[in-house]
Amino acid sequence: MKAAVFEGNGKLTIKDVSEPKLTKATDALIRVKGVGICGTDLHILQVPPAHPAKLNNILGHEFTGEIVELGSEVQGFSVGERVLIDPHPGCGVCDECRRGYPDNCIPLYEECEEPGHPNTIGIFSPGAYTKYVIVPRQSLYKIDPKVPVKIAALAEPLSCVVNATEKLKVTPGQYVVILGAGPIGLLFTMLMKANGASKIIVSEPAKFRREAAIGCGADIVVDPKQEDISEVVAREMGKGADVCIEAVGPLLPLAIMLVRAGGKVLQFGHDETVKPAIPVGVMLKKEVEIYGAFIGKQSFEKTVRIMESGKLPLEKVVSHTLPLSRIHEGIDKLRKGEGLKIIIMPEDA
Amino acid sequence: MKAAVFEGNGKLTIKDVSEPKLTKATDALIRVKGVGICGTDLHILQVPPAHPAKLNNILGHEFTGEIVELGSEVQGFSVGERVLIDPHPGCGVCDECRRGYPDNCIPLYEECEEPGHPNTIGIFSPGAYTKYVIVPRQSLYKIDPKVPVKIAALAEPLSCVVNATEKLKVTPGQYVVILGAGPIGLLFTMLMKANGASKIIVSEPAKFRREAAIGCGADIVVDPKQEDISEVVAREMGKGADVCIEAVGPLLPLAIMLVRAGGKVLQFGHDETVKPAIPVGVMLKKEVEIYGAFIGKQSFEKTVRIMESGKLPLEKVVSHTLPLSRIHEGIDKLRKGEGLKIIIMPEDA
Amino acid sequence: MKAAVFEGNGKLTIKDVSEPKLTKATDALIRVKGVGICGTDLHILQVPPAHPAKLNNILGHEFTGEIVELGSEVQGFSVGERVLIDPHPGCGVCDECRRGYPDNCIPLYEECEEPGHPNTIGIFSPGAYTKYVIVPRQSLYKIDPKVPVKIAALAEPLSCVVNATEKLKVTPGQYVVILGAGPIGLLFTMLMKANGASKIIVSEPAKFRREAAIGCGADIVVDPKQEDISEVVAREMGKGADVCIEAVGPLLPLAIMLVRAGGKVLQFGHDETVKPAIPVGVMLKKEVEIYGAFIGKQSFEKTVRIMESGKLPLEKVVSHTLPLSRIHEGIDKLRKGEGLKIIIMPEDA
Amino acid sequence: MKAAVFEGNGKLTIKDVSEPKLTKATDALIRVKGVGICGTDLHILQVPPAHPAKLNNILGHEFTGEIVELGSEVQGFSVGERVLIDPHPGCGVCDECRRGYPDNCIPLYEECEEPGHPNTIGIFSPGAYTKYVIVPRQSLYKIDPKVPVKIAALAEPLSCVVNATEKLKVTPGQYVVILGAGPIGLLFTMLMKANGASKIIVSEPAKFRREAAIGCGADIVVDPKQEDISEVVAREMGKGADVCIEAVGPLLPLAIMLVRAGGKVLQFGHDETVKPAIPVGVMLKKEVEIYGAFIGKQSFEKTVRIMESGKLPLEKVVSHTLPLSRIHEGIDKLRKGEGLKIIIMPEDA
Repeated sequence: MKAAVFEGNGKLTIKDVSEPKLTKATDALIRVKGVGICGTDLHILQVPPAHPAKLNNILGHEFTGEIVELGSEVQGFSVGERVLIDPHPGCGVCDECRRGYPDNCIPLYEECEEPGHPNTIGIFSPGAYTKYVIVPRQSLYKIDPKVPVKIAALAEPLSCVVNATEKLKVTPGQYVVILGAGPIGLLFTMLMKANGASKIIVSEPAKFRREAAIGCGADIVVDPKQEDISEVVAREMGKGADVCIEAVGPLLPLAIMLVRAGGKVLQFGHDETVKPAIPVGVMLKKEVEIYGAFIGKQSFEKTVRIMESGKLPLEKVVSHTLPLSRIHEGIDKLRKGEGLKIIIMPEDA
Repeated sequence: MKAAVFEGNGKLTIKDVSEPKLTKATDALIRVKGVGICGTDLHILQVPPAHPAKLNNILGHEFTGEIVELGSEVQGFSVGERVLIDPHPGCGVCDECRRGYPDNCIPLYEECEEPGHPNTIGIFSPGAYTKYVIVPRQSLYKIDPKVPVKIAALAEPLSCVVNATEKLKVTPGQYVVILGAGPIGLLFTMLMKANGASKIIVSEPAKFRREAAIGCGADIVVDPKQEDISEVVAREMGKGADVCIEAVGPLLPLAIMLVRAGGKVLQFGHDETVKPAIPVGVMLKKEVEIYGAFIGKQSFEKTVRIMESGKLPLEKVVSHTLPLSRIHEGIDKLRKGEGLKIIIMPEDA
Repeated sequence: MKAAVFEGNGKLTIKDVSEPKLTKATDALIRVKGVGICGTDLHILQVPPAHPAKLNNILGHEFTGEIVELGSEVQGFSVGERVLIDPHPGCGVCDECRRGYPDNCIPLYEECEEPGHPNTIGIFSPGAYTKYVIVPRQSLYKIDPKVPVKIAALAEPLSCVVNATEKLKVTPGQYVVILGAGPIGLLFTMLMKANGASKIIVSEPAKFRREAAIGCGADIVVDPKQEDISEVVAREMGKGADVCIEAVGPLLPLAIMLVRAGGKVLQFGHDETVKPAIPVGVMLKKEVEIYGAFIGKQSFEKTVRIMESGKLPLEKVVSHTLPLSRIHEGIDKLRKGEGLKIIIMPEDA
Repeated sequence: MKAAVFEGNGKLTIKDVSEPKLTKATDALIRVKGVGICGTDLHILQVPPAHPAKLNNILGHEFTGEIVELGSEVQGFSVGERVLIDPHPGCGVCDECRRGYPDNCIPLYEECEEPGHPNTIGIFSPGAYTKYVIVPRQSLYKIDPKVPVKIAALAEPLSCVVNATEKLKVTPGQYVVILGAGPIGLLFTMLMKANGASKIIVSEPAKFRREAAIGCGADIVVDPKQEDISEVVAREMGKGADVCIEAVGPLLPLAIMLVRAGGKVLQFGHDETVKPAIPVGVMLKKEVEIYGAFIGKQSFEKTVRIMESGKLPLEKVVSHTLPLSRIHEGIDKLRKGEGLKIIIMPEDA
């Protein structure tokens, strides 16, 4: 089968590899239907790499597919079923999983290829930029096959956004500011609207992303190079937002300034290189609550239901779908900032 | 001015009364724009009454209006502004208010006309089925005059529903069941949809209310005389709802049965005469959480914002608007179960 | 080895059985050090039984022990280590476990001996009233061997109480009422004191249990046959308790009456035969929150730490320790209401 | 009467002033029994001042006293009663108070002497370093006169710590690290112990404060100049603390490093001049929650109850009591770092 293989030094090569065989009783063989290009893939393919990955590994970790074969101990699933994939599931039996915190699963994070990075399928073991992939049973979540593949391929990023959304507990009548309108910022825009925000302001310098934000539910969009977001928030939200979502990386201090007393800030933009300087006095006098959010295993059930309900315009986050043979074209678009989420359809290759 | 006055024994008489004069520095004089007929009004007008009220008092407590005159100590408001009214505000200074629980305000509940019943304007002091009414400053909430009067008159019931909604912390991906589709059940249907519910089932015996529920956002409606709601929930929601809202009165045991493990039940239906028998074993093995909710003072800010956002189809709850002269017609319709919320427009009289 | 085997019709027989052999790679062989007699054991041994159990099964599910042998896939543990046992652990991989709700684990509750009852070790598979027992790796929690065996044997009931305590979020300055001072009520008394309650009232008819409650941290004890608990609460706590814990079974209505507005009620007393009639009007006007609590898998980490800290007088809940040969004596004492928690020490047999 | 008056440029002069007369119906006249010297007083008395204050004002805002006279509209209190004082109460009627956030009361913060600083009694209006002081009714909280004056004078700082404690929701079995053992760090040590922490590590460079921390409930104290607190936490708490309280000012980055995944950080140390650089990547991968906390009006009820219960060794925070005539001696001790909390007893003057 054809696969896009990471060969180091920024090189991703489409080549023939042999099809995988199921050997463990607790695994499943999946036919890939669609797989998203993640920002992490771009980081892996930088020179030097901004994120580690296993050499000669098939990349692709944001995927959906169909069950082809099941190990003897996998219960509750059938061959032919359509599934979402959690590419970095918890083991379910370590101390962190048992205390209710699988996002810190010990085998996944500590006893793995690169301690400190989750042992993600498609980064440290063979992934989905190909036809078949093997996953453990914990990765499987059934989904109605009526959900379009390009939507279902959003499962991993959407599950992260759902997990973060749960922390904020928005209710109708609240005002929300979102900093950044990349695919994650857009998913937050939809989720915040769906969760009841009565007014949403999105700040984003790129025009086509601001336009996408309007389509995803923003009430007001701001170009931070042209307007002072603080002034817009003061004019539109009085003493500040109830919630501010940082979906860029270094803007935590701004987010703290934009919320009102008792407000919540979500840090989701993930840039390991920045250390923004926090105005501690402002933060504590306003009694701001700051939440960090990363991946979210316990949110896959809700992710399935959101997709099946068809109530969110998730397709607006997908700017292109491409066959595997054109994956480099997709990567180039993302590097140039010309796309949102790009879905690779391996069986169209 | 004309006013609808409670004269005891189920009698509500429209008669001339003198206009009120502002005497306290902390009060405001309000020109009534619209006032809803509440179920409590019907209880007051039963023989014998099912709810106490002051004799010879002008009724009407769910209202909106315009500021005509302000006492010298009322700050932050101007004559001519449109306002929502909290008809039973906290004093702000008693021990219950200061601990953050104004819904149990001591002067409001204990040092009042009928201890145990909040000292509501329009029940125990002159209300809004007339032209002018005096309210304390704590009752005032500014609202954009673009919000239609018949929507703004929903402030009091909507604030109660918003208060209850805050307890449930629904997020997108959850499934909700609502028992009852009177005006309150319909407001809950809208709020639950707005708060992210991916599937809503509403159970209601009256056909026109089931149809209204669809318009308010229900995905599925059930006639409990024709179908077994438990079966519908099992078919549509698997192990049960995440949240079940009781908006009838005696159905708490059913609500407990309909949620899944870890689910939440809201008791909102208010019937002082019922004492439903709870299946304690089921409740604790599923670790159900049950929340009682009543009125909600701290939710008026959100109520204003929800109305101003124009995002909820609140008008679908209003079946009729009538001039004050036709208030008895409105009461009759409600007694016959032919209306939803009926708004009296005193200045159309 | 000697074992206490359930032979039906209320019969528990001490007899010789063969020692178990480890056959699964994910299991562990445990040498039992101590095992508590649970109220459920008494229910199993009623005629007719008030709780199901497997015929000819070794009973005993509240236990601690030492690791004798480990399957090849059990990681993070060593032979010789002292462990607490979760007798009904989640599988870690089913949908309920993955959504963060292992207390509703599907194989444990639905695909088991008696659907609806957790598939507990010591009820439906061989338990701990003997020398050796086999448990899955998910059952194992390391504990410092300095913790006395009779304390460590309280792990299962204590984990349930810790799980329930987490729901209540007590902080210093709150007032708590506890209904019932059996072993569970006494554990709650300790936990509520440890969690900061500034005043604790315990209601219990048996004198020796009231005395034990004082030793466990109660500020005031009430004999409900002699005094009106409502009057005591009104006198000592003003408008009511912040929290009321029902640890008897049928007293939910009383618990609702005893809390103040915004108060919390915990239903822990587990009696499947009762259906108490709830004063719905009172409950919703006070906006009471009612929590059901049962077992608690995610609370074992805290259970270990509480035991290791040595800060709680857990030994006060243990009225007797007996060798296995005298287990019937222990059961008799409990039936007569003469004991609190009784710990069987199999190796003293 | 004698009073300590702020005369600018770091000057605090004890001089004769005339006794205040009650003029407003909603005020009360209080005989001061005890008043703590606050760090803010020291900031006011720096040259140049590090905190604003009204010129020629009597300082002293952490106080307790007895009611001497009551305005005609003050209900629920009697002459002769002992009271705690909230020196910066909410008005109870502005939009912030009505939405449940009195700590951001608009008249208190915006329509006041120094917008942005609460309009505190004893800073911007006459305070308690004297015999009599006038306070509004919202400032009054009854307390049992059996509570010693030097304990009751801790009400304001304790209420702040109680407010912060409520955010953390500690339960027995959790591990807590506290950075700093000044009076506030010591109160947190007591509160965290009282709230159930199974292990508390306190980091503090001053030896006598580390010793005080032991007396207040710390299990382990660390001198950060001699030991690496990170190593101590790793050794004693495994993957990190559940909760870390920053009670110094600039140590938020360290606090983030010391908690485990899912842990909570409280920023309480208030230094408006620092802007610590936050490791955003670490914070979000561990999903840390950061809470800012300042003053706490809704926590006075709990403060009273904690004091009345007598269960916390609050006296250990008080290093000295002095008559008013020796206030400068107390200020000097605090400047030299030789004291903890120092209480001035005006009637001993």
